[in-house]
Amino acid sequence: MIQQKTNCGFRTVFRVRYYETDAMGIVHHSNYLRWFELGRTEYLRSVGLPYRALEEQGIASPVTGIRCHYHKPARYDDEITLKVVVKAYKNTRLTMAYEIFRDELLLCSGESDHAFIYEGRPVAPRRSLPDLDKILSKCLQSDSTEV
Amino acid sequence: MIQQKTNCGFRTVFRVRYYETDAMGIVHHSNYLRWFELGRTEYLRSVGLPYRALEEQGIASPVTGIRCHYHKPARYDDEITLKVVVKAYKNTRLTMAYEIFRDELLLCSGESDHAFIYEGRPVAPRRSLPDLDKILSKCLQSDSTEV
Amino acid sequence: MIQQKTNCGFRTVFRVRYYETDAMGIVHHSNYLRWFELGRTEYLRSVGLPYRALEEQGIASPVTGIRCHYHKPARYDDEITLKVVVKAYKNTRLTMAYEIFRDELLLCSGESDHAFIYEGRPVAPRRSLPDLDKILSKCLQSDSTEV
Amino acid sequence: MIQQKTNCGFRTVFRVRYYETDAMGIVHHSNYLRWFELGRTEYLRSVGLPYRALEEQGIASPVTGIRCHYHKPARYDDEITLKVVVKAYKNTRLTMAYEIFRDELLLCSGESDHAFIYEGRPVAPRRSLPDLDKILSKCLQSDSTEV
Repeated sequence: MIQQKTNCGFRTVFRVRYYETDAMGIVHHSNYLRWFELGRTEYLRSVGLPYRALEEQGIASPVTGIRCHYHKPARYDDEITLKVVVKAYKNTRLTMAYEIFRDELLLCSGESDHAFIYEGRPVAPRRSLPDLDKILSKCLQSDSTEV
Repeated sequence: MIQQKTNCGFRTVFRVRYYETDAMGIVHHSNYLRWFELGRTEYLRSVGLPYRALEEQGIASPVTGIRCHYHKPARYDDEITLKVVVKAYKNTRLTMAYEIFRDELLLCSGESDHAFIYEGRPVAPRRSLPDLDKILSKCLQSDSTEV
Repeated sequence: MIQQKTNCGFRTVFRVRYYETDAMGIVHHSNYLRWFELGRTEYLRSVGLPYRALEEQGIASPVTGIRCHYHKPARYDDEITLKVVVKAYKNTRLTMAYEIFRDELLLCSGESDHAFIYEGRPVAPRRSLPDLDKILSKCLQSDSTEV
Repeated sequence: MIQQKTNCGFRTVFRVRYYETDAMGIVHHSNYLRWFELGRTEYLRSVGLPYRALEEQGIASPVTGIRCHYHKPARYDDEITLKVVVKAYKNTRLTMAYEIFRDELLLCSGESDHAFIYEGRPVAPRRSLPDLDKILSKCLQSDSTEV
């Protein structure tokens, strides 16, 4: 798996696993959400926020919304490039955007919305989690310059 | 699994399976899309369009878009009620809408968009698949009276 | 989903979901283990041991081993009958056996081994969990009369 | 993902994905079979037998049996090392063996049995698929020197 923090967002490259396909011979549409998650957690790791460490500090960032457009199907063993950016971040809400490519062909684009939970209660990072806030703000700024 | 064609749409009742949960102790967000699919195929069966039979006739209806809002988490062994309706159907595109409840509590609402493929090519059912068109039109009419 | 405690073991009937298939057009072999789990938890429920309630009491029963023979493939929308029995139960270990049928045709047979964890430590139910021990012993006796 | 053909078998390194965990906070036992598949297909690729190319030639190698021992749980984000060897290969049947480690700790060991299907019929590679036979025989010889 090739992984790379780029000027704008994060890029990860991986292959389609057999169990991710369905009887249509293509990747089941639910699995793109799992790839979004994969890209998102690797992005967070690359900026010093491994999700496991967040969880160990009592922080969670559950998915509150998903929007996804499927343009072309992916197939078993395809080499997939996933690009992730922080699209919006304000108060209690984070939105990340994703593009999934095979070679230069865009297969899927999508977004996920996230809340922040600290010790069981919803919080705004700016007030309750200043370290997290600082990094996410910086990612937003860096990612919004180009996309 | 209780299943029921209602005046408006279709209702199916099932329990959360253990493997559908994740380390947060809740159902992984990708699995709601799989439940949407479950409800959608049971709805189609109830109106005389079992998806397997459609596939055997060379018809497929791939997912082209997903929108999903997660309101409250579902947990292992929860009894889930899923309601499905045909929300829009016109030319080459079908949109179905879903609501997922535990008891009276709305956990998740969402929509899926679908194209129609016949013998490998995208088609409009009205022109190419009149039997399918007739049933979907009737579902749309019946479901739009109340939702 | 039809479910039934029989003289010997437990029987559950369900349909193959689309996402359980893979690009071979058949159910991915890993999903049979998920069906075993489904049958096992429904069996436990039927004898008054819902797994969720066990977990809430601090009891877990993790899988320590799996053996599985795949005879014939299952396909999307097949109606599956799963039979489960308690095959062995002694001291710290429980073994359950499974048979998966489509109509009268045996598709898959398998076994799972389980340990018992109580408040984080491995235990023998006979010493530490007498209520659980009593029910499992009775299941073993009832299931071994016929299989 | 680090991948490497070793003198004996094949080694692949990857991280546990969030969706692979369950409400116990550990990797669901069914997912180890999916990792076996991942290691197996990467092994085949490394010896010049990408599974996708085999499928395109009309060859399939379905799983006919699984045996798996779970020693210790894997958790989200763990770095996993998977070792795969050809354990047995004769006539119509191939057996591969797997070991899954976190650091030096053995988490899981298992085996999978495989048949060979060519154009829909079961075959013995030695008679029907000489190129495949040659490579598998060589793998068996190389892998059996050390394990």
